[in-house]
Amino acid sequence: MIVTMAHGSGGAATSELIRDIFAKAFDNDVLNEMEDSAVVEGSGRIAVTTDSFVVTPIEFPGGDIGRLCVCGTVNDLLMRGAVPKYLTCGFILQEGADTEVLKRIVSSMAQTAREAGVQIVAGDTKVIEGNGGILINTAGVGFIPDGVEISAKNLQVGDVLILSGNLGDHHAAILGSRLSISNDIVSDNAPLTEMVANLEKDRVDVHTMRDVTRGGLASVLKELAVASGVVITLEEEKLPVTNAVRDFCGLLGLDPLYMGNEGKMIAAVPAEEAEKALNAIRRAAYGEHAVVIGRVEDPGQAADGKAGDLLLKTPIGGIRALDVLQGEGLPRIC
Amino acid sequence: MIVTMAHGSGGAATSELIRDIFAKAFDNDVLNEMEDSAVVEGSGRIAVTTDSFVVTPIEFPGGDIGRLCVCGTVNDLLMRGAVPKYLTCGFILQEGADTEVLKRIVSSMAQTAREAGVQIVAGDTKVIEGNGGILINTAGVGFIPDGVEISAKNLQVGDVLILSGNLGDHHAAILGSRLSISNDIVSDNAPLTEMVANLEKDRVDVHTMRDVTRGGLASVLKELAVASGVVITLEEEKLPVTNAVRDFCGLLGLDPLYMGNEGKMIAAVPAEEAEKALNAIRRAAYGEHAVVIGRVEDPGQAADGKAGDLLLKTPIGGIRALDVLQGEGLPRIC
Repeated sequence: MIVTMAHGSGGAATSELIRDIFAKAFDNDVLNEMEDSAVVEGSGRIAVTTDSFVVTPIEFPGGDIGRLCVCGTVNDLLMRGAVPKYLTCGFILQEGADTEVLKRIVSSMAQTAREAGVQIVAGDTKVIEGNGGILINTAGVGFIPDGVEISAKNLQVGDVLILSGNLGDHHAAILGSRLSISNDIVSDNAPLTEMVANLEKDRVDVHTMRDVTRGGLASVLKELAVASGVVITLEEEKLPVTNAVRDFCGLLGLDPLYMGNEGKMIAAVPAEEAEKALNAIRRAAYGEHAVVIGRVEDPGQAADGKAGDLLLKTPIGGIRALDVLQGEGLPRIC
Repeated sequence: MIVTMAHGSGGAATSELIRDIFAKAFDNDVLNEMEDSAVVEGSGRIAVTTDSFVVTPIEFPGGDIGRLCVCGTVNDLLMRGAVPKYLTCGFILQEGADTEVLKRIVSSMAQTAREAGVQIVAGDTKVIEGNGGILINTAGVGFIPDGVEISAKNLQVGDVLILSGNLGDHHAAILGSRLSISNDIVSDNAPLTEMVANLEKDRVDVHTMRDVTRGGLASVLKELAVASGVVITLEEEKLPVTNAVRDFCGLLGLDPLYMGNEGKMIAAVPAEEAEKALNAIRRAAYGEHAVVIGRVEDPGQAADGKAGDLLLKTPIGGIRALDVLQGEGLPRIC
């Protein structure tokens, strides 16, 4: 079946779409009430976030926009130390969208939500003119356990930075798919629920967490350095990149430092907690390639930097100052 | 300035857009932290909702997409008896969007959020190809006071139905604007915060509330009749419609019963609470034209209906059974 403007009317056709596709896949007591808003259990301190997803193609090697939107929103909650609980989803469908594709996307969302431990409790559907595209907004609510204080501003001098896995896979998978380049690269889109739960369970003293998405590792770390007023130094030879992605980057002149990922995080912990943190991350799903990639330095002491600097040490001893991504990056990567 | 694909990169251009437009207008401590998610105070029971807005034109008589999105989400929270607290906003901008227009929209959102008593705590920006359009998703979180149980399933036999004001204004304003018809009709887009607060303050025993949006009054009431397993009877001569909207409908062959509104609600209360409820609603902003339009009847006793029926009594004594909106309605009305 093909989506028409009538499916956005709020009348019978909208109800049919909701019943046959969304309610069937997301099936849970709260959503099934079909009220103006979902009423759910709360908590004393909550995290709230939102993200829209406009990725093309909507199905790509290793994932799809449905898995991506759940992972993106869940990971944003996790990065504040929250336990992700509820998601909302707003679908903006372009006229002509194929409901068979939509069913696959929605099924993928439902499956990823189960994996991530969240419930989809509210939704909305609109239809606009266009060419069969699917855009999704997800917002999320999580509960913050007592005593947890994780923030981009909390980097401390002496912290080590752990990256949970290889760089660039999502970016390379999307771009490769658009260019019809044949290789084995698949997107890393994944929920980091278990990884963050392990850090909490092992009582690792995490100062800062951040997922490495649009703009890539360099943009994310530059923002952290500025927010915390410190110098971050990275060791280039420690940065984990698969051979396949390295070859892909060589071919197209891309820099893995500025490529988006959708299932990778940075954790900053005191140096003495590094082993404990690595162990917690590595035994979680999607964390097996975690490594220490750099450290946080005192702007007053660092020979080569001032507060807010992000410095890359090259294998031959050079130092390159990195900035956030300038210009376009890859449009519609998420 | 014109929005380009670079503004969706997650790099420097995105940060600039966020700093110069969104952060400036929404200015609050939580949003200004610019973390992956906002950490805010919670509550034991919360309401969660989401809506996307794709209205065209984005600025229309009496409002704009910014005012509309805040009102729509706030009203959905209110309809469960929640006190609206936090909003998130996801902007999907089409390449070519004018940042001067965007600034007006964002300023309108900020002003409406202040009026509605909510804080915008998280946001996201994406850019897609297109022709300068602006799409917005808003999700909302509200706190539900102890003891409040308001639901579409709670209609009780003997309840009266109060409509908070005139029908059809938003629909007519949007359609009139598209057709360049010159008249005095303006959209009713408004937050119903004060109205619901008054009902709570006056301790009115409200069974059900529902805002009268896409699909119009008939679609909304038909859904309530089905959800509660009752018969709803409406008196046609009681339905409030301004002369301007009535003339507009006559001209175009429209039925105000199926026209969308964006600042109107239905409240179902026991007959003996009707006066108290009318008083609470009428003294609130946007409630001066509130009237009783019908009542809830027992399917076993009603002469003409069965559970789930919505019946319209005409001035000459006829009875017309109403269904939800069939077909298209007005595309992109919200």
